[in-house]
Amino acid sequence: MHNKYLVTDEWKIIEDRWNPSLHQGSESLFSIGNGFMGQRANFEESYSGQSLQGSYLGGVYYPDKTRVGWWKNGYPEYFAKVLNSVNWIGIRFRVDGVELDLAQLKVLDFYRELNMKEGHLLRRFKVEIREGLTFEAEVCRFISMKRKEIGAISYQFKIKGGDVPVEIIPYLDFDVENHDSNYDEKFWEGLEENVATQKAVIKARTRKLDFQVAAAMRYELYHNESAPLPLYPEESTRDKYAENAFTLQAKAGEKYSLYKYAAICSSFHYPKDSLVAKADELASQARRDGFKTLWAEQKADWQQRWEQSDISIEGDAEAQQGIRFNIFHLSQTYTGEDARLNIGPKGFTGEKYGGSTYWDTEAYCLPFYMASAGKEVARNLLVYRYNHLEKAIENAAKLGFSNGAALYPMVTMNGEECHNEWEITFEEIHRNGAIAFGIYNYVRYFGDEAYLAEYGLEVLMAIARFWAQRFNWSESKKQYVMLGVTGPNEYENNVNNNWYTNYLAKWCIEYAAEVYARVAEMDPAALQRIVAKTGFNAEGELKQWQEISSNVYFPVNEELGIVLQQEGYLDKEQRMADDLELSERPINQHWSWDRILRSCFIKQADVLQGFYFFEDHFSKEELERNFDFYEPRTVHESSLSPCVHVVQAAYLGKMDKAYEMYLRTSRLDLDDYNREVHEGLHITSMAGTWMSVVEGFGGMRVRNGQLHFNPRLPEHWKSLAFKINFRNSVLKIRLSSQDHAIEKLSGDSVEVVVHGETISL
Amino acid sequence: MHNKYLVTDEWKIIEDRWNPSLHQGSESLFSIGNGFMGQRANFEESYSGQSLQGSYLGGVYYPDKTRVGWWKNGYPEYFAKVLNSVNWIGIRFRVDGVELDLAQLKVLDFYRELNMKEGHLLRRFKVEIREGLTFEAEVCRFISMKRKEIGAISYQFKIKGGDVPVEIIPYLDFDVENHDSNYDEKFWEGLEENVATQKAVIKARTRKLDFQVAAAMRYELYHNESAPLPLYPEESTRDKYAENAFTLQAKAGEKYSLYKYAAICSSFHYPKDSLVAKADELASQARRDGFKTLWAEQKADWQQRWEQSDISIEGDAEAQQGIRFNIFHLSQTYTGEDARLNIGPKGFTGEKYGGSTYWDTEAYCLPFYMASAGKEVARNLLVYRYNHLEKAIENAAKLGFSNGAALYPMVTMNGEECHNEWEITFEEIHRNGAIAFGIYNYVRYFGDEAYLAEYGLEVLMAIARFWAQRFNWSESKKQYVMLGVTGPNEYENNVNNNWYTNYLAKWCIEYAAEVYARVAEMDPAALQRIVAKTGFNAEGELKQWQEISSNVYFPVNEELGIVLQQEGYLDKEQRMADDLELSERPINQHWSWDRILRSCFIKQADVLQGFYFFEDHFSKEELERNFDFYEPRTVHESSLSPCVHVVQAAYLGKMDKAYEMYLRTSRLDLDDYNREVHEGLHITSMAGTWMSVVEGFGGMRVRNGQLHFNPRLPEHWKSLAFKINFRNSVLKIRLSSQDHAIEKLSGDSVEVVVHGETISL
Repeated sequence: MHNKYLVTDEWKIIEDRWNPSLHQGSESLFSIGNGFMGQRANFEESYSGQSLQGSYLGGVYYPDKTRVGWWKNGYPEYFAKVLNSVNWIGIRFRVDGVELDLAQLKVLDFYRELNMKEGHLLRRFKVEIREGLTFEAEVCRFISMKRKEIGAISYQFKIKGGDVPVEIIPYLDFDVENHDSNYDEKFWEGLEENVATQKAVIKARTRKLDFQVAAAMRYELYHNESAPLPLYPEESTRDKYAENAFTLQAKAGEKYSLYKYAAICSSFHYPKDSLVAKADELASQARRDGFKTLWAEQKADWQQRWEQSDISIEGDAEAQQGIRFNIFHLSQTYTGEDARLNIGPKGFTGEKYGGSTYWDTEAYCLPFYMASAGKEVARNLLVYRYNHLEKAIENAAKLGFSNGAALYPMVTMNGEECHNEWEITFEEIHRNGAIAFGIYNYVRYFGDEAYLAEYGLEVLMAIARFWAQRFNWSESKKQYVMLGVTGPNEYENNVNNNWYTNYLAKWCIEYAAEVYARVAEMDPAALQRIVAKTGFNAEGELKQWQEISSNVYFPVNEELGIVLQQEGYLDKEQRMADDLELSERPINQHWSWDRILRSCFIKQADVLQGFYFFEDHFSKEELERNFDFYEPRTVHESSLSPCVHVVQAAYLGKMDKAYEMYLRTSRLDLDDYNREVHEGLHITSMAGTWMSVVEGFGGMRVRNGQLHFNPRLPEHWKSLAFKINFRNSVLKIRLSSQDHAIEKLSGDSVEVVVHGETISL
Repeated sequence: MHNKYLVTDEWKIIEDRWNPSLHQGSESLFSIGNGFMGQRANFEESYSGQSLQGSYLGGVYYPDKTRVGWWKNGYPEYFAKVLNSVNWIGIRFRVDGVELDLAQLKVLDFYRELNMKEGHLLRRFKVEIREGLTFEAEVCRFISMKRKEIGAISYQFKIKGGDVPVEIIPYLDFDVENHDSNYDEKFWEGLEENVATQKAVIKARTRKLDFQVAAAMRYELYHNESAPLPLYPEESTRDKYAENAFTLQAKAGEKYSLYKYAAICSSFHYPKDSLVAKADELASQARRDGFKTLWAEQKADWQQRWEQSDISIEGDAEAQQGIRFNIFHLSQTYTGEDARLNIGPKGFTGEKYGGSTYWDTEAYCLPFYMASAGKEVARNLLVYRYNHLEKAIENAAKLGFSNGAALYPMVTMNGEECHNEWEITFEEIHRNGAIAFGIYNYVRYFGDEAYLAEYGLEVLMAIARFWAQRFNWSESKKQYVMLGVTGPNEYENNVNNNWYTNYLAKWCIEYAAEVYARVAEMDPAALQRIVAKTGFNAEGELKQWQEISSNVYFPVNEELGIVLQQEGYLDKEQRMADDLELSERPINQHWSWDRILRSCFIKQADVLQGFYFFEDHFSKEELERNFDFYEPRTVHESSLSPCVHVVQAAYLGKMDKAYEMYLRTSRLDLDDYNREVHEGLHITSMAGTWMSVVEGFGGMRVRNGQLHFNPRLPEHWKSLAFKINFRNSVLKIRLSSQDHAIEKLSGDSVEVVVHGETISL
């Protein structure tokens, strides 16, 4: 099924031969970024083969005109697109008049490496320019973790077979496209282009929203690493574009090194009128400090990151590579300094899905960032939603809700809804619950109750208000019901009484009331402020909440001892995923939508997502009955599906199932299980892999403020080791089947429970 | 709410003053057609104001690239659009150098009349060209009912205030657009343009499907109706366009008459290489015969049509005008000579909705055409579906059905599905049942059982096969259920066990089995042919049909004594349509889709549609309980909703409700209730008006092969009279509150039952 062409290595992703048909996928896999921007592994030189050129800036997006079949009231006006931004890597080479283009020339040798330990992309290749004349290069590129605006390239090359002129053209280019533009528009308009000797700076704006971005470059050419060569380039510009072009009389066998430094500053971070000067200054500074200094900074930064977030797996090199690959991409997608940013499904590796934020963030990503990146980073993920509260209230109002009820968007860039399929946009409302659960999870993990008074309660109240209005009284059932929803299993639409949604909604209402009481006790002034701001009618609303949450209808089947995914689920023909022909799978590529909807097949954890969130609310036996019922009906056609099942299967001691599921999540992109890696990586599901390892095999849980481990490793894993932040400490954990070792690296003293035994650190 | 600007007249639609803001609506209302082609009431001369230029040819469409948000498997590749075709009416005038354009000049007088009795459009107007100089004209236009390719125009004009040159430019133009093109494409490509003195013929093809159309023109200019003037025009062409331009030295006060004849031939009817010659020949013939002859033919044809189909209402001039308006448009939309044509929702009056055929044809239009146009015309409507059977089987196969099961499309031009919202396309499958019901209805009406052996049974079997597969066994209910459907009430999507669909499906299966047995008895050879062709396993399939149809689940509420629109309907908050604020109505313009879906509000008859089709299956009390429950929850936001309610309300003696509903259907377009007449007319719902009058107030039913009348007229109606075809007779019926008169005009002897009393004719 999958596509294995990468060399297994614990710290590197390596491609050791040239295969043009895999290149666009490799462009995704070998992407680099720094949380503020990212760049697919496009080539610096010209490339006329299949490629998705992609350079992305966090927070800079385009509100593309929505494409719908039939418009429905309440649909958003636009679909926010991750925006392909300035091509800052470009360096054209013409070797003795021949354009350097791997799609056109004979490639004699090719090697590409994503160095995850040090945070750079390396490429070596050798091509035949014509018979007897070869060009070979070693290209190293990174986006600086320390200097958020800086990208640097070292392009070292040699000619063999004769002295020839090499024309070299470093450039900057905003004249780029989005492949997924709905109406084939270009999104950038040029504002200015400045060019001089060995430097350029250009500026452009996006249509509609007027994001402005300036990109500056510097470069130098060295011969045998001595002093930089004096250059007399031809300088030229056109709309959205600037270049230097010069000709080097290259000597055969000699090594030349071109260093290119780019600085990209956007109006997301800087005032518009300062952008050109700022980019120019930062590029200039980068050149003065030089590639080696920047590179050393990069190594040091990544060393520190890995100190905090590495997971090592002894005895399974592929699993080791897989988990590091996932951690690496998560770490370069979101770094947590800016609460306006979030984690897009494809991060900085592709255009697909647009938007930046799904419920994935709270449901799947938060645990990784809490443990690996720490409290401040995790807190910023929560504040992101706090900052969007007003828009979530407006969004709910559009759908007819009132009194400050909030419905967070399914997909968003800035708090506004972007998604436009009614069954998702208007009905997949469980997302609201995940956002509340994120707050609960964060406070449980860090004990940061002050967050509740400062930000959390307001969000929780607005969400509770939404649910209280969204339930309706059924005269026929004499209970509160929730009609017309889509649960996490998107292979059901517009169902009534989805168990997960009802359960989560009821919990949200109860938790909001609980936090309300807690803040009243802890910080009465804050409460007063919040009550005044929200016009909360404490007596009436709390009573109404209690009335509703104590009387919610849940579909169950007592005979089977299970809860029902939704009312009527057992009216479906009951088949197992294993009964499906291989030729029918994935069903979303082979079956019409109605057939999927009326089948019993489940896309991703739905009931089990509820059991995952609220494991402590249920007995192990209840979980097991539901797991045994639902997992065999689950086709796992969402990248977010396997991880929840790993955690539960491991907990239930179903280790074969756990490992089977683990393989589907950990190397999803590396081995291209879904044949879509060319579109970008599945960034958010990578956090699910982390969950699988740490919560699944490591058995990590937080209960009553204490960290628990009940490790159950796959048989061939000798050990599993990782570091985590917990409360105010950093811990180093090493687990194996035989023993465990837990060490506090820094912070307050803390108690950890392993297999029921309490250890004080 | 509505928009009354037309003069009430029993036989005419009259607009007696110029109002540019209403013009586009009038263009729809005053449309003319002949079943093969149609033309909106655009002006012949230039018009730079708001207008929807529309000239449509039956069967000539464009498969526009579908526009969707997210693509789903099984969606059709294209959306068939009614295609705006050649502008054949165009005649430009430049009066003393001033372009004649009612949007730019001062209109001194304006009168427009749709003469329904004689089938033509008349316009008189007077404009000021400049101070002291006026131009006045009387323009008459029709599309010949007798000569299907011919349109004719008489343009008589006078100048007052001086002798001035008038430049006159008759032209033909394929360079036209569709307003609703998804991607702003032009759909026509020019093939040839020929022009000579007083004649032109041009030819174009549609992109993709290569429909070819040739349009030819002739014209003549008369002075005071004497001999035609000798003309020396400048002839010119450009791509897709041809014109003659000449200048008349017009004398003040003299009457000039321009006659333009156009012939339009399409490859839908003629071989492609014959089109130019054919159009040219027909135009030439028309000119030779002359306007007066053509006009006399037209009058005679309409006289005969009205003989067959008129309804006269004494005592209610508006109702009289309304019903004739509806009959007029139905008669010029579909004339039944060609089984490849059908009745589009907007007929030849606008672009909206694309496609030509919805379930409207069988559910709403068939009764009108049976009674008014007779057996052959009605039969062609049925044969249309027979001819699409193979594509309906392919369509079902795409959705996973097998063994010759057929799912007819929701919207189609040629049998292929065009609609692409999953909840409609894949789930509004009750349309299949309406097609079966159409066969039943036709055979019941005409007693034409031979149709069953020849065509009907094959269709019925394929439909029954579909339903037999579409039901699934519910282990939980121990009955057959139907999951994931959309009923006629499109304000519910993806519901389980929609009562109407389940009832209709069960009936279809039973009716197919019954017809199977009848054909076996009546025409064993035909049965043998059909069994062989369809691979029908008589024993197995008939047994399975019986097993399913005898054990279908129906949602009911015994306490209320009603059937339930679908499972769970009573979990909804129960509100009445009258409780809605005016500002919220229509809810489809004010509420988000999820809110509509989870409300109890009903768009159009759903349960009651079932009671309408199968009135004899239920007691009057059952109907009344369901009517009293559902009608108050119905918002009638489909133009197809009121008519069913008129029929039932009249039957139940609820005359106020019946008349209220009647007003909403009979003058829907004339008084522009929905503020959308500028987009075209609601052709199919016009047939619902006919149903309201004949079946509602007239109380006409067919039971056991006999025609029944139980008239109940609105109080102020003195009488209601109409003619109908029934079996092999033509009857003239006159009903009033006091008495009735029924006369056989032609055909076999027949028995009619009025108020229970049998009359032999």
